[in-house]
Amino acid sequence: MQQHAWIINHFAQGRLEGTELEWVERSVPDLQPGDVLIRTLMLTLDPSNLLWLSEEPDYLPQLEIGDVMRGLVLGRVEQSRHPGHKVGDLVFALLGWQQYAVVRGEALTPVEGAVSFHPHPDIPLEAYVSALGPTGWSAYVGMRLVGEVGEGDAVLVSGAAGATGLQACQIAKACGARVVGVAGGEKKCAMLQQELGIDGCIDYKATDDLSAAMARAFPDGIDLYFDNVGGPMLDAALENMALRGRIVISGSISQYQSHGDREKLYGVRNTFMLASKRLRMEGFLILDYLDRTGEFMPQLESWLLSGALRYRNTLVQGLENAQAALPRLFSGDHLGKLVIDCR
Amino acid sequence: MQQHAWIINHFAQGRLEGTELEWVERSVPDLQPGDVLIRTLMLTLDPSNLLWLSEEPDYLPQLEIGDVMRGLVLGRVEQSRHPGHKVGDLVFALLGWQQYAVVRGEALTPVEGAVSFHPHPDIPLEAYVSALGPTGWSAYVGMRLVGEVGEGDAVLVSGAAGATGLQACQIAKACGARVVGVAGGEKKCAMLQQELGIDGCIDYKATDDLSAAMARAFPDGIDLYFDNVGGPMLDAALENMALRGRIVISGSISQYQSHGDREKLYGVRNTFMLASKRLRMEGFLILDYLDRTGEFMPQLESWLLSGALRYRNTLVQGLENAQAALPRLFSGDHLGKLVIDCR
Repeated sequence: MQQHAWIINHFAQGRLEGTELEWVERSVPDLQPGDVLIRTLMLTLDPSNLLWLSEEPDYLPQLEIGDVMRGLVLGRVEQSRHPGHKVGDLVFALLGWQQYAVVRGEALTPVEGAVSFHPHPDIPLEAYVSALGPTGWSAYVGMRLVGEVGEGDAVLVSGAAGATGLQACQIAKACGARVVGVAGGEKKCAMLQQELGIDGCIDYKATDDLSAAMARAFPDGIDLYFDNVGGPMLDAALENMALRGRIVISGSISQYQSHGDREKLYGVRNTFMLASKRLRMEGFLILDYLDRTGEFMPQLESWLLSGALRYRNTLVQGLENAQAALPRLFSGDHLGKLVIDCR
Repeated sequence: MQQHAWIINHFAQGRLEGTELEWVERSVPDLQPGDVLIRTLMLTLDPSNLLWLSEEPDYLPQLEIGDVMRGLVLGRVEQSRHPGHKVGDLVFALLGWQQYAVVRGEALTPVEGAVSFHPHPDIPLEAYVSALGPTGWSAYVGMRLVGEVGEGDAVLVSGAAGATGLQACQIAKACGARVVGVAGGEKKCAMLQQELGIDGCIDYKATDDLSAAMARAFPDGIDLYFDNVGGPMLDAALENMALRGRIVISGSISQYQSHGDREKLYGVRNTFMLASKRLRMEGFLILDYLDRTGEFMPQLESWLLSGALRYRNTLVQGLENAQAALPRLFSGDHLGKLVIDCR
């Protein structure tokens, strides 16, 4: 059987050129005993894709020229020679930018970065690539387990109209916090406030003093800052943190295009405030929590069914359009989760 | 009764000029019912003195021109009109750079920033301004309560030959960690290793690549970084942290001379690593832990008596020499705790 895949042609140097990957045809290997064949239904585009495309060590093994591009796939088992996996089972895993993947059945575990799941009958599959997938899990883990959001907390979320930010805002609201997002443009701010009920929104494209805008939105300081952006946004938030506030580092998308080029990275000047304000700043990766999805999936599904949690996906049809879509993650011209629909 | 005091003449602008304070004679007020008269025995010089001398909001109320300079005093009750305090009682409090202070007896509580104590009969009073005073408490709280140092941890301490650093190194050793300090100069490094038994020392004055030096000292990464320094040292440590490492922000002495001048502050470029390495970075102030000294003083005294905890004080005789001694905190030409001896 033949399939198409995106393989690495050359490494990214900062800003994406759109030629880093090459669209190739290749054969799908035959299944050996213990193997499972998974078809890609949806491929999510994530800021970390840019890190994986760089020739710079990160938290996962370095990819090589000629490798299939790494990516998170919601896939369906099409053939199985492993007793633990049946045809039709659904799974999240880093199966890469390809139409089919053949993997060892025993590797489909949280420890290996894969989570099998059973969709709720009343919830569409699209919800599982955003609110109920790794994006929603990240928002939940960052907001609740790391950030310990509580009733009455004053919460700031950057990248609020982005995939993780959208979910983080709504989870904080569901936990009784007052939530202000930072997003780019009136349209995104209107969506956050009017459609999702977020308490306030700072349009960073319409302000030349982020710190002052935060000070107006948080006269008593920020109790919890959920950071998807890093860079100058993090600096401005540090200036506006309340005593004993918490900062959750979920991502630093503003810095990924400088990955590997230390001189271009933004320097955060206000880290000295960690002591004077007694702040805790903590990073996390959802990979560490994959074995705990059973704890929070029921909560997320229940919020979704009650309307407390909504999602926005930007669907791009066809795996062949994945490379062209990737830069949209960094230009901000999409809403919510950017997904390649391969169904 | 007359006394001498240092009052604020003008605010500091970055580097100290040595004219910010004025040495004045003034009378000691008569005691009212409930008042206590405390004589300054020893005044500690601390990096935060520079923050307090600046016209820039910090974690304590802003001082005004003409105010007595704020400072931490180990004092003795000389007269008392408060039933809770007897002549001869010893106390730590922010009584200021003056020979005597008259305070309300009920204000001498941890909540108000004061701790009364009874020295162990076998321990000299000098130990209580360093290893067994707020400096030692900071080291203990930062290392154990915030940093959660444990057996086998690979620990880095910056400003290791400074007052807090010295104690932090030894406390980590006493808890079974492997400890490498960063200090300026061969003499300090030799003292740390040979006299205090610290496992290694990076002489920052003899290296032009701090990060590489740390990588050599920590081939498996740093589990716990106790930071007294901030700035480029923090950036280099971030590069060398192990997965799930902890960074305790005790101070940022490298940045205090830029306090209030945002452009001069060093920008930390590697904060994005908090997520990829799942790091926790947390600041603290000892002021928040003054009501818990009863928990850890017995441990610190026991370590001191057993020889596990040693201290180094640099004593300067006479309160009149305090202003001239203050810049020594930032030039690094002292060892351990810089103390004005007023006895």
